[in-house]
Amino acid sequence: MKIVQMDEFLNELQVRNSQQLDIELDRTVLSIIDDVRSIGDAALYSYTKRFDGVDLDSLIVSDDEFDEAYTIVSEAFCTSLAKAKERITSYHNEQKEQSWFVQRENGVLLGQQVTPIERVGIYVPGGKAAYPSTVLMNAIPAKIAGVGHIAMTTPPQADGKVNAHVLVAAREAGVDIVYKVGGAQAIAALAYGTESIRKVFKITGPGNSYVARAKKWVFGDVAIDMIAGPSEICVLADETANVVYVAADLLSQAEHDEQAAAICVATSDEFAQKLSVEVGKQLVALDRAEIAGKSIEAFGRIILAQTLEQAIDIVNELAPEHLQIMVQNPMEKLPYIRNAGAIFIGDYSPEALGDYMAGPNHTLPTSGTAAFSSPLGVYDFMKKSSIIHYTKEEFETIADDIIVLAESERLTGHAQSIHVRKGNVE
Amino acid sequence: MKIVQMDEFLNELQVRNSQQLDIELDRTVLSIIDDVRSIGDAALYSYTKRFDGVDLDSLIVSDDEFDEAYTIVSEAFCTSLAKAKERITSYHNEQKEQSWFVQRENGVLLGQQVTPIERVGIYVPGGKAAYPSTVLMNAIPAKIAGVGHIAMTTPPQADGKVNAHVLVAAREAGVDIVYKVGGAQAIAALAYGTESIRKVFKITGPGNSYVARAKKWVFGDVAIDMIAGPSEICVLADETANVVYVAADLLSQAEHDEQAAAICVATSDEFAQKLSVEVGKQLVALDRAEIAGKSIEAFGRIILAQTLEQAIDIVNELAPEHLQIMVQNPMEKLPYIRNAGAIFIGDYSPEALGDYMAGPNHTLPTSGTAAFSSPLGVYDFMKKSSIIHYTKEEFETIADDIIVLAESERLTGHAQSIHVRKGNVE
Repeated sequence: MKIVQMDEFLNELQVRNSQQLDIELDRTVLSIIDDVRSIGDAALYSYTKRFDGVDLDSLIVSDDEFDEAYTIVSEAFCTSLAKAKERITSYHNEQKEQSWFVQRENGVLLGQQVTPIERVGIYVPGGKAAYPSTVLMNAIPAKIAGVGHIAMTTPPQADGKVNAHVLVAAREAGVDIVYKVGGAQAIAALAYGTESIRKVFKITGPGNSYVARAKKWVFGDVAIDMIAGPSEICVLADETANVVYVAADLLSQAEHDEQAAAICVATSDEFAQKLSVEVGKQLVALDRAEIAGKSIEAFGRIILAQTLEQAIDIVNELAPEHLQIMVQNPMEKLPYIRNAGAIFIGDYSPEALGDYMAGPNHTLPTSGTAAFSSPLGVYDFMKKSSIIHYTKEEFETIADDIIVLAESERLTGHAQSIHVRKGNVE
Repeated sequence: MKIVQMDEFLNELQVRNSQQLDIELDRTVLSIIDDVRSIGDAALYSYTKRFDGVDLDSLIVSDDEFDEAYTIVSEAFCTSLAKAKERITSYHNEQKEQSWFVQRENGVLLGQQVTPIERVGIYVPGGKAAYPSTVLMNAIPAKIAGVGHIAMTTPPQADGKVNAHVLVAAREAGVDIVYKVGGAQAIAALAYGTESIRKVFKITGPGNSYVARAKKWVFGDVAIDMIAGPSEICVLADETANVVYVAADLLSQAEHDEQAAAICVATSDEFAQKLSVEVGKQLVALDRAEIAGKSIEAFGRIILAQTLEQAIDIVNELAPEHLQIMVQNPMEKLPYIRNAGAIFIGDYSPEALGDYMAGPNHTLPTSGTAAFSSPLGVYDFMKKSSIIHYTKEEFETIADDIIVLAESERLTGHAQSIHVRKGNVE
């Protein structure tokens, strides 16, 4: 694993991915979206045959398929899933926002009404991979928000079925309906509706580049959670950090995909040297050594800072998706962290704990977007309405000021709606 | 003003604007963004000359220009602006979220740290129009959130200056710097930075179609507030509503632009007839009668519902930006409203009050997007980080479950990061 000096790394950082342009990809995605909008289900069946190699009879997972899934998964899986559900639910319950009202002079009432989004759609990647944890992390906050209809869509396997672990997770998490559709066609169907698939108002969940691009295109017509880039971890380590743990955590990130970035910001040269060796040693033993190896080679970095203060500056500049603080008295560093998706504190809070079991969401802002966005949460499945109730008495104290401001913007119709209430007219 | 039956209207509603495609516009916008990214300030000067007809010496509004602005605006304007600022601040203070922590068994601590976005940019439309209220509504929540650097950008007037009312509002609201740039080039400069303009992490504020499209393109590289469509009002009125007030409020919306939609959902045929006549009568007296007239003709509707329940269903389906409830006992209808940007209750809460003075934000979700999005608020200028601190004791109670779930997803590197902490390895 490469060891680089701080300044060198900060220069590399300037070149971040841009969301902007990929003409070929956009053309394909837009033509898929157009097809789904114009011919509906027929487009979905046709793309599923073409991309997933499956001729489906129905786009909807049946009750029998759910029942079958329960016979396939192990009892241990169900037990562990139930524990994860409990911890995720307990954390997300703390996020639920309440409507509020405040009284002002002369009987004025102002407030903010918080209501669930009525229907949402969750995209879950499929094919060879299966991510039951993604199902929990998306569906549980939606359920807690009070969403009335939670649809899930995922590409079918080669046998036309959906992975059993994913189906069991969907049922346990309270998903209302599961569709066997993947890719840009699934996003288009959720955004605009087809004969089989009901239009939703918000789409969340990770996906490949077609899915990400389709989400960007439908954004505005529906809400989306975020456009996720490759996953990343940053470990802040001083000379006291456990080199075996840090290496294992970096590799757990690197095995996700070749684009994943595993970064350690270290303050000790000796630690950096040891870590580099340890990563190499653990890497060869991994099932996914090939993927992890490419990721470490291309994006893995041990960055040397002179001081812990400098190291923290680098972390804030990086705005990592996952930050592990593995230094002496780690809790005391928390107030200095300004930009990070999730912050894992101490030796026994590895990223993998957060991916499955700790409670907080594992859907986090990637590629530096933690500088301006938040983990997926209950707040993503609710929306707010402002409440304004003025009385005649209070209205009259402020009516002339509204007229002054409206006239400064030359909106005399606005001023007129105040005049008629002052009895100035007719 | 047209009176239509409920069913007829619901059919019309199916055809909503799509954010998706406008190849010509996109090509122009993307080439502007590319220019700004590659040649920076030079592109900004050149586009400002081309689109705004002004040859600028500097992109930054000077202290002298601010001083001059204060000599131009009236004392009445300053007084009314100060009152608006006070009420907007008071409401938005209630929105500020706090970080929170919860304790769990065995010394576990979980939480959510809420921090301001470090730098944001506000776009304010310019040219002939001037909107000091937009400045307040964007800058005040950012200030309350604790944003360290608030930049504002607005196209210069023909004389190379920025409207005095807008400048005074910017200074009063705590904007740190004002740039004289408009259009897609301003959005690109805020998103990617130039020699004069510092990159920000989030861009908010309304704009024309170039601005809206540029925001869609940079979204992902930076955060944006929303892609605003034409403005709309919906008045829910029974036979007791004041026909003069309702007509004035519909017209205050219609004068915004020809695409604006003014809608009344009424339960009384007689009221609908009177309202239609009253709108015609008030319309001719308006300064902006031409714009308002076109808007009323194209998008103005009085929708007749059989019952108040039906009328409320239509409102929820419409998900209007502004909803005025002007029926008997209006407060009691509030719990039935599920989708609306802002809800104005009773005879003395006209939309114009909310546009300037009531306190809540006037930046609201348009075109039915209130079904899935919220008014601009302090929460838009902050982001959250999850906090996870597990202890060895609690880690050990749950370690095996993490391994089960990681293996169900075939992520054995994740499992390995748990094994090393259990002492299973080495």
